[in-house]
Amino acid sequence: MSAEQITGSINSPTPLRVGVLGFGGLGQAAARVLAPKREMIWVAAADQKGYAYAAQGLDPDASIAIYQTQGTLGYLEPTGTLSSQSIQDLMERAKPVDGYFLALPNLPNTFMASIARQFIQSGWQGVLVDALKRTSAVEQLLELQEELLAAGITYLTGCGATPGLLTAAAALAAQSYAEIHSVKITFGVGIANWEAYRATIREDIAHLPGYDVERARAMSDAEVEALLDQTNGILALENMEHADDVMLELAGICPRDRVTVGGVVDTRNPKKPLSTNVQVTGRTFEGKISTHTFTLGDETSMAANVCGPAFGYLKAGVALHRRGIYGLFTAAEVMPQFVK
Amino acid sequence: MSAEQITGSINSPTPLRVGVLGFGGLGQAAARVLAPKREMIWVAAADQKGYAYAAQGLDPDASIAIYQTQGTLGYLEPTGTLSSQSIQDLMERAKPVDGYFLALPNLPNTFMASIARQFIQSGWQGVLVDALKRTSAVEQLLELQEELLAAGITYLTGCGATPGLLTAAAALAAQSYAEIHSVKITFGVGIANWEAYRATIREDIAHLPGYDVERARAMSDAEVEALLDQTNGILALENMEHADDVMLELAGICPRDRVTVGGVVDTRNPKKPLSTNVQVTGRTFEGKISTHTFTLGDETSMAANVCGPAFGYLKAGVALHRRGIYGLFTAAEVMPQFVK
Repeated sequence: MSAEQITGSINSPTPLRVGVLGFGGLGQAAARVLAPKREMIWVAAADQKGYAYAAQGLDPDASIAIYQTQGTLGYLEPTGTLSSQSIQDLMERAKPVDGYFLALPNLPNTFMASIARQFIQSGWQGVLVDALKRTSAVEQLLELQEELLAAGITYLTGCGATPGLLTAAAALAAQSYAEIHSVKITFGVGIANWEAYRATIREDIAHLPGYDVERARAMSDAEVEALLDQTNGILALENMEHADDVMLELAGICPRDRVTVGGVVDTRNPKKPLSTNVQVTGRTFEGKISTHTFTLGDETSMAANVCGPAFGYLKAGVALHRRGIYGLFTAAEVMPQFVK
Repeated sequence: MSAEQITGSINSPTPLRVGVLGFGGLGQAAARVLAPKREMIWVAAADQKGYAYAAQGLDPDASIAIYQTQGTLGYLEPTGTLSSQSIQDLMERAKPVDGYFLALPNLPNTFMASIARQFIQSGWQGVLVDALKRTSAVEQLLELQEELLAAGITYLTGCGATPGLLTAAAALAAQSYAEIHSVKITFGVGIANWEAYRATIREDIAHLPGYDVERARAMSDAEVEALLDQTNGILALENMEHADDVMLELAGICPRDRVTVGGVVDTRNPKKPLSTNVQVTGRTFEGKISTHTFTLGDETSMAANVCGPAFGYLKAGVALHRRGIYGLFTAAEVMPQFVK
């Protein structure tokens, strides 16, 4: 009997068939993360103008090259298809996909919930994982709980870095305490080429005073560049609307107003301006006040800290789905499984 | 709809009925941890000479006072019963218990597995949680997987601090990496009064060169005191046989020989000699080597870091049990739930 059989983890005779929706910086990183995995095979992807599906697996190098030179996976030979409703078309064609990572920029803020509704309506059953950031976006998904249950879809939300890995670490750290006083998430991100993460940077800009999602989305690259020139490439973000708050509240750990998220993004330097960490402060049953800290290694990229957990949650989601456990879950409720 | 209903967490109309087996330092701390909880009620306990069961709840102060003055809960009025087979008697009498925390010293090393067998044979169905330390002890439980499944028991093993909280943190931290190179757990424990943790200290001594479980168990208090006099009260432990290794191997994270556990116990000072931490080093999908670190606050006691997670896993175990998910799980596979 193998270790996985013993412990009840999933143990597929064949790799899990995984799709990636969205093929910007995050989607492309996801393809590279999946490439060496034995337990998962990357079979489907979609961008705004097209999609590709191949039961035997898609090639990351060829896919990224096509997207970067021609702007869409629709031109990928022989499996690409141009489509102005690429996600809808892929859903209809690619039923034999076990789970999707939704690596889509959530612009507008209702976009991910609308994608979830499309999956519900399509009749497809499987696992969906997102790396949503905003509280309001996760709240929209909470409203779909009954529909997801009825549709036989297991949806795991907030499964990136923060929310995601750091939220789960906070949920774990909370275990030592009788009461949680504060959860403080501080992230540092360093990227040398913000142009590779256009959507992500605009989502960060949307958190700055005087900006919102719509205004940030409408900025041209030149306008983003001009803003970054003013700040020497630094985006300093405080009291961000991050779904870590609602996720920890839902998990019963503390009221959402005790959760704060802030960070510094350096768009001109791959070195992180500070070490990303979460600090969980609480009172133990003996009345002591203390703080547990989970700190990410500086050499780990945003892509590694988002895509790794996302697929770990997807694997855990498949285990839930195979047991008939559907509906909405957050990263704070489920232990991700390591994908080999 | 409440948050718990939305997210699928357990939402009991009545508190979970919890038992604690073993009433030394750890069992007494467990009673104190449970006392303020609304979601759990402490209804059953057993020590070597007796047991107590009260459906409306046991009183921690009275129970601890009786145990400390008279040596057994069997003298507790009106619910205590003297018994030379206290655990067996409690099992037969206390069927309406949702879950037990096995706060028993695992001496001899086969003891916990023998307790699990007693539960299997008793016909009781529910959740068992242990805070076992040794690899070989967890391996004995792995052999009971089929019997636990058939008996309708959900058993979560290694759910204390290490293994437990730190193992789960390592499983989480691993998500950022394509390959794990090492998991290094280093704990610091400071206790002012080792006499309150006689069994735990003997388990630590058993890890020292020249000692084993049998020899440590056979030591008189005077012999322990003499040993501690030689080391100025410090126990420095390296390459300990700790089940974090088999648990992370079972979770598919890395081969067990990449997991090391060591620490320093100061038996004469409540201040920790160093901050307990786990360091997870790996390679990301981009080929970067880095280390995530999870560090426990120095003010948190061993009791808080063991009992808190143990009941968090017990709550998560009840959610599994109610879905008909039985068998053996480790702390690295399940996200503990926060107990209010």
